[in-house]
Amino acid sequence: MAKQQSSTIPHLLAASELTKEQIQGLLKTAKLFSTRLKGNQTLPLLKGKTVVNLFFENSTRTRTSFEIAVRRLEGGTLNFASTTSSVQKGETLIDTAKNIQAMGPHCIVVRHSSAGSPVTLSKALNLPIINAGDGFHEHPTQGLLDAFTIQEKLGEVAGKRVMILGDIAHSRVARSNIHILRKLGATVVVCGPPSLLPPHPEALQVEHCYRPESILPQADVVIALRIQLERQNSMQIPSLAEYSKIWGLSRERASLLKKGAIILHPGPINRGIEIDPDVADDEPRSVILDQVHNGILVRMAVLAEICNPDGLTHWMNQEGTSHAS
Amino acid sequence: MAKQQSSTIPHLLAASELTKEQIQGLLKTAKLFSTRLKGNQTLPLLKGKTVVNLFFENSTRTRTSFEIAVRRLEGGTLNFASTTSSVQKGETLIDTAKNIQAMGPHCIVVRHSSAGSPVTLSKALNLPIINAGDGFHEHPTQGLLDAFTIQEKLGEVAGKRVMILGDIAHSRVARSNIHILRKLGATVVVCGPPSLLPPHPEALQVEHCYRPESILPQADVVIALRIQLERQNSMQIPSLAEYSKIWGLSRERASLLKKGAIILHPGPINRGIEIDPDVADDEPRSVILDQVHNGILVRMAVLAEICNPDGLTHWMNQEGTSHAS
Amino acid sequence: MAKQQSSTIPHLLAASELTKEQIQGLLKTAKLFSTRLKGNQTLPLLKGKTVVNLFFENSTRTRTSFEIAVRRLEGGTLNFASTTSSVQKGETLIDTAKNIQAMGPHCIVVRHSSAGSPVTLSKALNLPIINAGDGFHEHPTQGLLDAFTIQEKLGEVAGKRVMILGDIAHSRVARSNIHILRKLGATVVVCGPPSLLPPHPEALQVEHCYRPESILPQADVVIALRIQLERQNSMQIPSLAEYSKIWGLSRERASLLKKGAIILHPGPINRGIEIDPDVADDEPRSVILDQVHNGILVRMAVLAEICNPDGLTHWMNQEGTSHAS
Repeated sequence: MAKQQSSTIPHLLAASELTKEQIQGLLKTAKLFSTRLKGNQTLPLLKGKTVVNLFFENSTRTRTSFEIAVRRLEGGTLNFASTTSSVQKGETLIDTAKNIQAMGPHCIVVRHSSAGSPVTLSKALNLPIINAGDGFHEHPTQGLLDAFTIQEKLGEVAGKRVMILGDIAHSRVARSNIHILRKLGATVVVCGPPSLLPPHPEALQVEHCYRPESILPQADVVIALRIQLERQNSMQIPSLAEYSKIWGLSRERASLLKKGAIILHPGPINRGIEIDPDVADDEPRSVILDQVHNGILVRMAVLAEICNPDGLTHWMNQEGTSHAS
Repeated sequence: MAKQQSSTIPHLLAASELTKEQIQGLLKTAKLFSTRLKGNQTLPLLKGKTVVNLFFENSTRTRTSFEIAVRRLEGGTLNFASTTSSVQKGETLIDTAKNIQAMGPHCIVVRHSSAGSPVTLSKALNLPIINAGDGFHEHPTQGLLDAFTIQEKLGEVAGKRVMILGDIAHSRVARSNIHILRKLGATVVVCGPPSLLPPHPEALQVEHCYRPESILPQADVVIALRIQLERQNSMQIPSLAEYSKIWGLSRERASLLKKGAIILHPGPINRGIEIDPDVADDEPRSVILDQVHNGILVRMAVLAEICNPDGLTHWMNQEGTSHAS
Repeated sequence: MAKQQSSTIPHLLAASELTKEQIQGLLKTAKLFSTRLKGNQTLPLLKGKTVVNLFFENSTRTRTSFEIAVRRLEGGTLNFASTTSSVQKGETLIDTAKNIQAMGPHCIVVRHSSAGSPVTLSKALNLPIINAGDGFHEHPTQGLLDAFTIQEKLGEVAGKRVMILGDIAHSRVARSNIHILRKLGATVVVCGPPSLLPPHPEALQVEHCYRPESILPQADVVIALRIQLERQNSMQIPSLAEYSKIWGLSRERASLLKKGAIILHPGPINRGIEIDPDVADDEPRSVILDQVHNGILVRMAVLAEICNPDGLTHWMNQEGTSHAS
């Protein structure tokens, strides 16, 4: 039986701040949602509550995932996109957020190009803040959903060897993944061109390499990152063609993986650049669409834990029974 | 009493693929919605279901019509507009759609500039797809709502003479109308500048003419199409002024219509170009706003038939009673 | 006990058209919502009704405020933004609005850059129209929420001395405020550079001055207006720096205010231009975020009074009992 718990997570600002127990708790909640809620069955944990999606960068994928997660918890969403907001009129982030707070929502999900914006908001406001991606810093729900996907496919994360391939230095996805996977007991190896690796990988407690071939045969998981097309122009890689040739997850390279190894990608994918179309579509080894599906479950877990921990605990304790509406 | 039926319409990709019976079934359903549901009364045929509006072209009108139709069936909608989606990041249409599918919706309504996109999606996904306009190909719900409007105003479509006036060659509205009106037994005449008529009108089983005056006195229905302003620049018409002078539905030309004839336009109208303002506003002969109203009923019929045929049949069989919520 | 009333407000087009009694009625309703509805408790006065937000100018703040107000009355909203609408295709405002009307909503909230657009719509349509800002003309719900905020903070509006500081000539906020505050018995003084004062302040029955220092010590309320950054380029002010120096609400100037005086701003604020950051954040003297909070209550009152006056009266008469859902 799940034991009584109160929320120890007032915000979700960074995976680096989550304890192993908190991560495991969130993954356990997501798993319960997955097994107990059939089809698109909803659960009234956010009933009467409004979650604001405050997105200063384009993201249909992540925003929609949060939006569906809120709906499945029977809450309401309000979308603020930078292109139509007062930010265009020169208002500061904090003024915008304080105005939103004054309208009475229960939680803000924020994406912003500046690392640290969610922390800034959490200090300025009296509302739970969930980081949906801040600059090159973190994207903690992506890290959680990747860990959940690995756990679902391989049984557990502990003891697994996870290779993250691509532009590690500029990837908030990589950063959140490293924190979460390490805490859950995985070994993480980052691989990519020297110009796109973090300057001090040892500080992140990860191994590193420059060529994928040496690590692929030992990996249980490969997370191929999206290569930003603008890296080419900034001279951080010689060319997309060369990147693809040396670091792309081609059919030949993917054939080095052992049986049972899985391939993740945070999307959207650049077919033929960081991943070969055949490899991306090679289900069940490729679990890219499972990641999207699991993202909703994990975000439901985060929202429920942050916005209604007591209701969540109550529901979790209804062992063996289903009281979802 | 309505007889038992199961859905024979897994998708709505093109009017050309609908049988006469399917068209009549959809129009009958729309008519029942119109008569049984008072005011904005709702009906829970999509309760708990989510319909995604995946629009790669601007369209407030069609998108909103679908959105209202979904709401009146008590479903939820999610809007994906190309301007904020991952498509800007270079993702393919199929990848975008597969990601959406992984989030668990029940139906996708798609508008795209490429003819055939809805067919492509229907093959790649396991979800019902509704075509809300694909390039110059088809716009089947517009064809259905036009047929419904003609039926409402003139009693039936069979035996009527329908003139479609304007840029037939580039009009998905014209194409869907031709298929539906022909199947329902109307005679269709297309009229416009030679450069804007289809190259082989006989293949579409329609008559054609180059000057409206010869056909207007015999027409029961005129559908004036929107002239795309960019046709002028592409030299397909000499000038908008000349187009208007020869093919525009002026007061003088409209006076050639017989008593009881009606005027349709799919909107948005260019006042003073393809239609004179006085003619557009000349209700009840002009039924342009009836078309908008009917669009919701017809889209409700399509959504109900595709997403919940059993529930629809059950409701239709509740003859004489109203169990709408 | 609240006495029986029927709606005398078919539209909300301009504060200039509201009687003192209508204004007081709306403020009283907002106050009742504030005291009787706890937290984000909802009230089903718009249940089953759809309100369209037809916004031709960017405004996250006002649109969202209306959206939340509609939700708290359990209605649905549909957003039409000019950037995605048929207006881009050259459709007229009235055609767009008539199309929207044909889709069956119950009320249109409109923002448009042309003064008088809401009046035009109210004549062309058979729907209640609420003006959410029309050019330099009016923004009546802003005027109402400012009056409500003053009443909440200072007990009443009558007899108070209100200074409006800044670009009066181009401010619809100022215009609506003047009408409402005057009718409620306040004295209004407008202050700003001569180029930004209305040409005939006496026609508006307000006092005027060019330097804030002379009036600040007597003011009970200062409403600092947003200075449009483009005024600088149009030569209406010498420079933003000079504007700020002479008319900005600096700490020094704010220190001239008497004890108990309050500071309002319609937002979004330009920190350091028309108002010093320390002054803007100096709660409880600065009531800028209270204005945002009150905006929802006032808009709920307007929507309920216009769309469901009988339901509102019924609820108001349930004295001492709470039947909100």
